[in-house]
Amino acid sequence: MIDKLIEKIKKLGNPSAVGIDTSFDYLPENMKNNCKTLDDVGKAITEFNFNIIDKVADIVPSVKVQIAYYEMYGLPGLKAFSDTLAYAKKKGLAVISDVKRNDIGSTASCYSAAYLGSVNVNGNEFTPFESDFITVNGYLGSDGINPFLKDCKKNGKGIFVLVKTSNPSSGQLQDKKFASGETLYESMGDYVEEWGKDSVGKFGYSCVGAVVGATHPSQAETLRNRLKHTFFLIPGYGAQGGTADDLSVCFDENGIGGVVNSSRGIICAYKTEKYKGMDYAQAARAASEDMQADIYRALKKAGKVK
Amino acid sequence: MIDKLIEKIKKLGNPSAVGIDTSFDYLPENMKNNCKTLDDVGKAITEFNFNIIDKVADIVPSVKVQIAYYEMYGLPGLKAFSDTLAYAKKKGLAVISDVKRNDIGSTASCYSAAYLGSVNVNGNEFTPFESDFITVNGYLGSDGINPFLKDCKKNGKGIFVLVKTSNPSSGQLQDKKFASGETLYESMGDYVEEWGKDSVGKFGYSCVGAVVGATHPSQAETLRNRLKHTFFLIPGYGAQGGTADDLSVCFDENGIGGVVNSSRGIICAYKTEKYKGMDYAQAARAASEDMQADIYRALKKAGKVK
Repeated sequence: MIDKLIEKIKKLGNPSAVGIDTSFDYLPENMKNNCKTLDDVGKAITEFNFNIIDKVADIVPSVKVQIAYYEMYGLPGLKAFSDTLAYAKKKGLAVISDVKRNDIGSTASCYSAAYLGSVNVNGNEFTPFESDFITVNGYLGSDGINPFLKDCKKNGKGIFVLVKTSNPSSGQLQDKKFASGETLYESMGDYVEEWGKDSVGKFGYSCVGAVVGATHPSQAETLRNRLKHTFFLIPGYGAQGGTADDLSVCFDENGIGGVVNSSRGIICAYKTEKYKGMDYAQAARAASEDMQADIYRALKKAGKVK
Repeated sequence: MIDKLIEKIKKLGNPSAVGIDTSFDYLPENMKNNCKTLDDVGKAITEFNFNIIDKVADIVPSVKVQIAYYEMYGLPGLKAFSDTLAYAKKKGLAVISDVKRNDIGSTASCYSAAYLGSVNVNGNEFTPFESDFITVNGYLGSDGINPFLKDCKKNGKGIFVLVKTSNPSSGQLQDKKFASGETLYESMGDYVEEWGKDSVGKFGYSCVGAVVGATHPSQAETLRNRLKHTFFLIPGYGAQGGTADDLSVCFDENGIGGVVNSSRGIICAYKTEKYKGMDYAQAARAASEDMQADIYRALKKAGKVK
């Protein structure tokens, strides 16, 4: 799958993901006003998401869907999540489910079945929340990761392991230095490189990627130099404060190596002065185009694209 | 909530949680055979769970419900999860949702709303997957924890942060020593103690607990001595290999300080030689009673109960 994602990124010249993290608050007033129940909310969010996907599917390679925004609305929210994944897939987008799941081996197998694999019920096979990639948390070590690796290999999927996250307090633990000399985020990164070593594809990147925040450019640069076969999922651009120049360090000398996510910056663009007068889907497209141009400019400045 | 849980534990003399992690494979053949769809699976699991809850509700203080086993069956699985939480709550059990959620602050707020808080839709308030406690992963540091703390205080809830997990590879990262002298699990434990310092209840424990595996008694003992106000959720007893004597170190000199979970050991007891001839709910009750007696014996041996 990592090869397919990189091919799509190269073809569109756009290493980005639209983050479809649709809080009820993000909807236009006229869509919000009619909602009374969680069912109403789920339907409204689904309509919003489908319209955004329709408008960006030909210019972006991928979407990242943050499940927390759907769990919040209970079963109707999770139906919207599921329908959004399926619709994005149907439109040809690579689907990254941002779920940050983690558990002991037997339990991680269940999560893997839910997102990357399948479950069998008396001979009938189901793929509940089928995704191309998911994010996972590696705090439990290898045996919490292995079930995901198994499904990655079997079904051509990928994972992104949290290495250096984009939030302000990520350094409290992640930046602490071990007695052996490396920081926790470097150590986690080394495991990621190790976990991916059997699945390196034709562009030099494996099915085991890393989440590396755009908001911490110095750590991101360290990781890019350290993890040669690890593709980065890069959150933190835009609303969280990361700039295109900050995140250009995540890319290799060929201008690949990462996919940059923006959520609020795209799906809430219609609320800003810059995109005034556009509807939410038009504004999302315009903001995606602007983001692409901004990243391209930064990569050019860094000498990583021509 | 931690006070209520401890009161319940003291009243029943039983510091345990029944882990309702119901894989389809765990169901009796006659319940499995009729299932063709995920809807069928969800209904069968719900029936199984309700019967177990009915049979143990008067002897155990709490249930731990592992969401991965439900996500695996998609929306019908999550309906079973939701119905199981509500039923256990109705029967007076403290409900621990084992979800190990984690994310940046804004996103952690969504998770918190789903499990410990509520969402507001035009003046109507909803509590999607209402739980008394959830498990969380602290890899992202304080700003990924604060939203949960806010709801803990507001709504009388609690969290258990992963500190030293029960799986074999937990030491890969968690046991590594920082240059400052403490291990990662000790450092995480110190944060847990810090996060809980404003919510210490009448038994000396705060609303911020720690997940500490029964399978690593030496680390558990270190943590018990280090974290005086941190209540432990203790997985790993039974099927994972942890014994009552191993986990007695998690309890303080008054015989409190933790709640021990067993999942397969209880809900799959009917499949074992020891409980042969009993139906699954009778066997679950008998296995719960045996677990209680086993923990009591170990705590007595350790001089922690009379």
